Amino acid sequence: MKAAIIGTTGYGGGELIRILNNHPSFTIHSVHTTRDEKPVSAEYPHLTGIFDKVLTSIDPDKIVEEADIVFLATPSKVSGELVERFINQDIKVIDLSGDLRLKDSETYRKWYKYEAVSNSILGEAVYGLSEWNREQIANADILANPGCYPTAALLGLAPVLAEKVIDPKSIIIDAKSGISGAGRSPSLGTLYAELNENFKIYKVNEHQHIPEIEQQLSLWNGNEVKITFSTHLIPVTRGIMTTMYVNLKEEWDTLRLLDLYEETYSRHPFVRVRKEGIFPAVKEVKGSNYCDIGLHADIRTGRLTIVSVIDNLMKGAAGQAVQNANIMFGLEETAGLEMMPLYP
Amino acid sequence: MKAAIIGTTGYGGGELIRILNNHPSFTIHSVHTTRDEKPVSAEYPHLTGIFDKVLTSIDPDKIVEEADIVFLATPSKVSGELVERFINQDIKVIDLSGDLRLKDSETYRKWYKYEAVSNSILGEAVYGLSEWNREQIANADILANPGCYPTAALLGLAPVLAEKVIDPKSIIIDAKSGISGAGRSPSLGTLYAELNENFKIYKVNEHQHIPEIEQQLSLWNGNEVKITFSTHLIPVTRGIMTTMYVNLKEEWDTLRLLDLYEETYSRHPFVRVRKEGIFPAVKEVKGSNYCDIGLHADIRTGRLTIVSVIDNLMKGAAGQAVQNANIMFGLEETAGLEMMPLYP
Amino acid sequence: MKAAIIGTTGYGGGELIRILNNHPSFTIHSVHTTRDEKPVSAEYPHLTGIFDKVLTSIDPDKIVEEADIVFLATPSKVSGELVERFINQDIKVIDLSGDLRLKDSETYRKWYKYEAVSNSILGEAVYGLSEWNREQIANADILANPGCYPTAALLGLAPVLAEKVIDPKSIIIDAKSGISGAGRSPSLGTLYAELNENFKIYKVNEHQHIPEIEQQLSLWNGNEVKITFSTHLIPVTRGIMTTMYVNLKEEWDTLRLLDLYEETYSRHPFVRVRKEGIFPAVKEVKGSNYCDIGLHADIRTGRLTIVSVIDNLMKGAAGQAVQNANIMFGLEETAGLEMMPLYP
Amino acid sequence: MKAAIIGTTGYGGGELIRILNNHPSFTIHSVHTTRDEKPVSAEYPHLTGIFDKVLTSIDPDKIVEEADIVFLATPSKVSGELVERFINQDIKVIDLSGDLRLKDSETYRKWYKYEAVSNSILGEAVYGLSEWNREQIANADILANPGCYPTAALLGLAPVLAEKVIDPKSIIIDAKSGISGAGRSPSLGTLYAELNENFKIYKVNEHQHIPEIEQQLSLWNGNEVKITFSTHLIPVTRGIMTTMYVNLKEEWDTLRLLDLYEETYSRHPFVRVRKEGIFPAVKEVKGSNYCDIGLHADIRTGRLTIVSVIDNLMKGAAGQAVQNANIMFGLEETAGLEMMPLYP
Repeated sequence: MKAAIIGTTGYGGGELIRILNNHPSFTIHSVHTTRDEKPVSAEYPHLTGIFDKVLTSIDPDKIVEEADIVFLATPSKVSGELVERFINQDIKVIDLSGDLRLKDSETYRKWYKYEAVSNSILGEAVYGLSEWNREQIANADILANPGCYPTAALLGLAPVLAEKVIDPKSIIIDAKSGISGAGRSPSLGTLYAELNENFKIYKVNEHQHIPEIEQQLSLWNGNEVKITFSTHLIPVTRGIMTTMYVNLKEEWDTLRLLDLYEETYSRHPFVRVRKEGIFPAVKEVKGSNYCDIGLHADIRTGRLTIVSVIDNLMKGAAGQAVQNANIMFGLEETAGLEMMPLYP
Repeated sequence: MKAAIIGTTGYGGGELIRILNNHPSFTIHSVHTTRDEKPVSAEYPHLTGIFDKVLTSIDPDKIVEEADIVFLATPSKVSGELVERFINQDIKVIDLSGDLRLKDSETYRKWYKYEAVSNSILGEAVYGLSEWNREQIANADILANPGCYPTAALLGLAPVLAEKVIDPKSIIIDAKSGISGAGRSPSLGTLYAELNENFKIYKVNEHQHIPEIEQQLSLWNGNEVKITFSTHLIPVTRGIMTTMYVNLKEEWDTLRLLDLYEETYSRHPFVRVRKEGIFPAVKEVKGSNYCDIGLHADIRTGRLTIVSVIDNLMKGAAGQAVQNANIMFGLEETAGLEMMPLYP
Repeated sequence: MKAAIIGTTGYGGGELIRILNNHPSFTIHSVHTTRDEKPVSAEYPHLTGIFDKVLTSIDPDKIVEEADIVFLATPSKVSGELVERFINQDIKVIDLSGDLRLKDSETYRKWYKYEAVSNSILGEAVYGLSEWNREQIANADILANPGCYPTAALLGLAPVLAEKVIDPKSIIIDAKSGISGAGRSPSLGTLYAELNENFKIYKVNEHQHIPEIEQQLSLWNGNEVKITFSTHLIPVTRGIMTTMYVNLKEEWDTLRLLDLYEETYSRHPFVRVRKEGIFPAVKEVKGSNYCDIGLHADIRTGRLTIVSVIDNLMKGAAGQAVQNANIMFGLEETAGLEMMPLYP
Repeated sequence: MKAAIIGTTGYGGGELIRILNNHPSFTIHSVHTTRDEKPVSAEYPHLTGIFDKVLTSIDPDKIVEEADIVFLATPSKVSGELVERFINQDIKVIDLSGDLRLKDSETYRKWYKYEAVSNSILGEAVYGLSEWNREQIANADILANPGCYPTAALLGLAPVLAEKVIDPKSIIIDAKSGISGAGRSPSLGTLYAELNENFKIYKVNEHQHIPEIEQQLSLWNGNEVKITFSTHLIPVTRGIMTTMYVNLKEEWDTLRLLDLYEETYSRHPFVRVRKEGIFPAVKEVKGSNYCDIGLHADIRTGRLTIVSVIDNLMKGAAGQAVQNANIMFGLEETAGLEMMPLYP
């Protein structure tokens, strides 16, 4: 199968190259950019001699003709404009931006400050949370790849929400992300000297991933769910941890809850549940597609603390995108994604 | 005034030297250790030529005779054993460990796993949260210097708890600390290669600062307060951020709440309240004694998010200790503590 | 082929697991430690669910009987003691320590401060600089895997030394390494708070890699070569850069020198030569087995600056060990080593 | 004395505020920028409540009228344009850029790629290497503050060059700098995700500090000196280490050389010489104005290794600028500069 990548020079695009270049079933047919045409290795010297294809401009007709799947690793708004060119064509589309994730265009406008794509596209796009939406993904032509924070949060919350053991009104998500999540465009806020030895909170109660998480939680819950969600920048390159606090409706202890998680995720190769008393750290998934989960129920307060970690560029972006591509093409879900965490 | 420092080779002890060596009213009379006698600069080469005193063993009688104040920068349990030698003597004592902070010896035993010091000592020791306990501190002979996390959390929560605008049952504190808080004793868990590019949660619902925070919150509240409290390690050397979530009982908006904080802390030189829409980052207080606070009330959920940052070795340890010493000796509260944050 | 790994809990051992677990021809038959028997994942949680073998004690007879190759990822001195148990047996041995590298036992004693292994073992052990010793490696039973610094330095110096265009008396190597090179044993000097935001020089003119580099350079040169060699610690986990300064005997310019390097390494998949004006950075090889080289000849001074970078745990340890194992067993040199650099 | 600062929003300007705000003899009269007028704390939130002056545009006449000294913390080229407005006026000028350092305008043009300022200004400007040019500095009206790398290199080389114990043709300087040296303007090359976990070499044999170092070395030597000089980026915010290699003309051993350095710098409070076997690390001077030096003479090769470290924003920029201002105004050389290194 031939893949085209648009938005290659960002970190998500770079990670798609790392995965697909060694993938057993996909080959990278072409890489595209809105900037100058030049070898990818001029932008990413680590690819020298490994992947030397030249970045070319975006010609949707040619891409449709030549490729089987196109990955849009472009920013929000750019993806939305591009996606119309690939709709109802003989090509599968996976969009890594936020443009296709929210079903309600009004909500999109409110949180993203742009106009949404057409309702028909929103209606057709399948939300690609691989572990929970597998059947729809298998039949999708257009896939909205989940956001990095939503992936970590939703995988951590799903089992207890589905099992109705928590109060859905009580959900608080304290999320922390490595800096690569902020992208590769130069800005004062992402300079080394500003972020090194620093730890910042940003977009308090205003992050565009809030409606994305709420949309999925509400679907699972049957009624609308509202969350409190904070995002922080950790001075690391890769990695997300979400620390989540929920009130238990029933007196389940830690072991019983861990059993539920173990059972829920037993057939899902990329979700690993830690034993009692052990919590995952972000470096334990670095460079891999795993989502690791730990939890503790506090009998003193009746609250449950759930911790999930992912690599934001892998399970939070390019890794899950390829996992979804595997499902869409009927391949082994883990194909091309067996790389182990890089530790230390 | 002459100061003696015990436990000089830890990071708290080193920071006391940094402050007191340039203090207008205190001189460092002697520095002590349980290890080999040698110049401090053999342990801390950055002090070469600046502070070359020799570390000597601990002789409490001599210290009492020669010094006006002794700082115990020793670990919990060690402090408890030492403090008895300085009680009821002509010397002021400031203990930076957790040994004198909890008034109830049973609670201490439960969370620290050691026996507490005698009830008479616990009764006499004043909890040194400078901004909220000034009068008692001014008259104290023995002072329990607050923990790093409790300092950040309590300064952030005090105004809304005192004003009764939040539900005291709803308090969730998600805390993050730089690595220097883990001390200077070699261990696998604090090696560079283990913590670099990593972010960990630890002691979930088991941290010994939980009862310390609850004790003070309960005092302010009039009734027992229980909290949910998580601690994480940030890959930075210095800095604590506490992100706190509470349910508002009344519909105060962000501006009204910020006014309350501004007013509460207007006469306190080391607490700085950020304007609406702005939150402090940990590097904005590095190397200084400030505690910076920002907050946002979310009308969607009725929850308030409060953020406070400190330098864990300064306002979280040595800085607040000197601030308290200043108060105990009737000096200007800011004496020796005017150093600005080191940015970037 | 079945591989046994001794010294599994160090960073070199962990990296061998990462490589061999996905290797097309080797399987990890057993992992051994001198510490307690327990699952590897208890020591390395990132392996949870991926590689759950139990660490067992070291039984050389059993290992010889069951495995085809044993990797000694043990510290110097420990390797020397172990290697005798595997000599003249039906098993290949690759030692990652410094114990078998120096041919002269007196030199070993001087720089390592221990007694060397027997001369017969030293004589039999082949120095495994893969690109330059391939024939001997292919026939080796015992292999001394090169040190991390020597690998980077020798690959960078070999072409110009072999071509006789530099003055061999003028070689100065300024080397910088990430902290994982210091191993996983807790010590004050490798604590996060000591190394973070720091940059240190250590073992000036005393590093045990000096005789290793000189031994190989002298072999190539025909006469004894003495070098000046300095080592520094970079606050990163992985990566080595050697910046090397040599006097040109002839007036070769940068382009002609780059041609020489390109030609020399054209058939060697793991050495990449940068174009004129471009120098490699350590993150461009992270997690991969590449050695990247750049250089510049300065006509003002007649000196050549050569820069080489490797990942110290890969090409500098476990990666080159597997590359050598591939050669020893007649496999494709790149088998199991195709992982791309992890960037960013 | 009243000081004006131009170029306040860069890291050098920020550091001038940190120093001068607590200086016993200088007050910061005004701060200027070419950007929008706003409070400094809008740009640097760590100054909130400490230093809240508003940035104003640059009015040279007004500055001359109101201030006693102006610090140009502006980039090269900008400084050169500004300095003419302050020349021959009743105000002292300290320029932190490279525009006034090179006496030969042709050399400036070659390395900086701009036109130099007039020869009369170049002739009048005094090179402010405080420890070696004190007398001229005391009488200067215009001062060229030395570059960060030249300060570290020259202080380390001066004693042996002056004493004629080294071969001046043999000087090799391998320099490493923290990222704040690259300034505060957003660029791909200084993004966190690009530099974190990385180590880069840049401007090989092309750095504009080469002629600055050579100019001063040549002056001391009496004949022209040419050096080999490499610069690397360390992933830390502050700190420079220069590792220097020179051939000894005479057989001086380490101790004799250290005696020379001790004696040379005994009356200079900001230069500290380490004992035999001990080398300084960059964090040992962080936030302070010290330059620490260590060295080792290798009898095997006849080469001397000299190591010097500074904080690039302090002794390498704002710290030395204030040290020079103190000398220019006849104040104590250490006034306002007694801050101790911030460790850890």
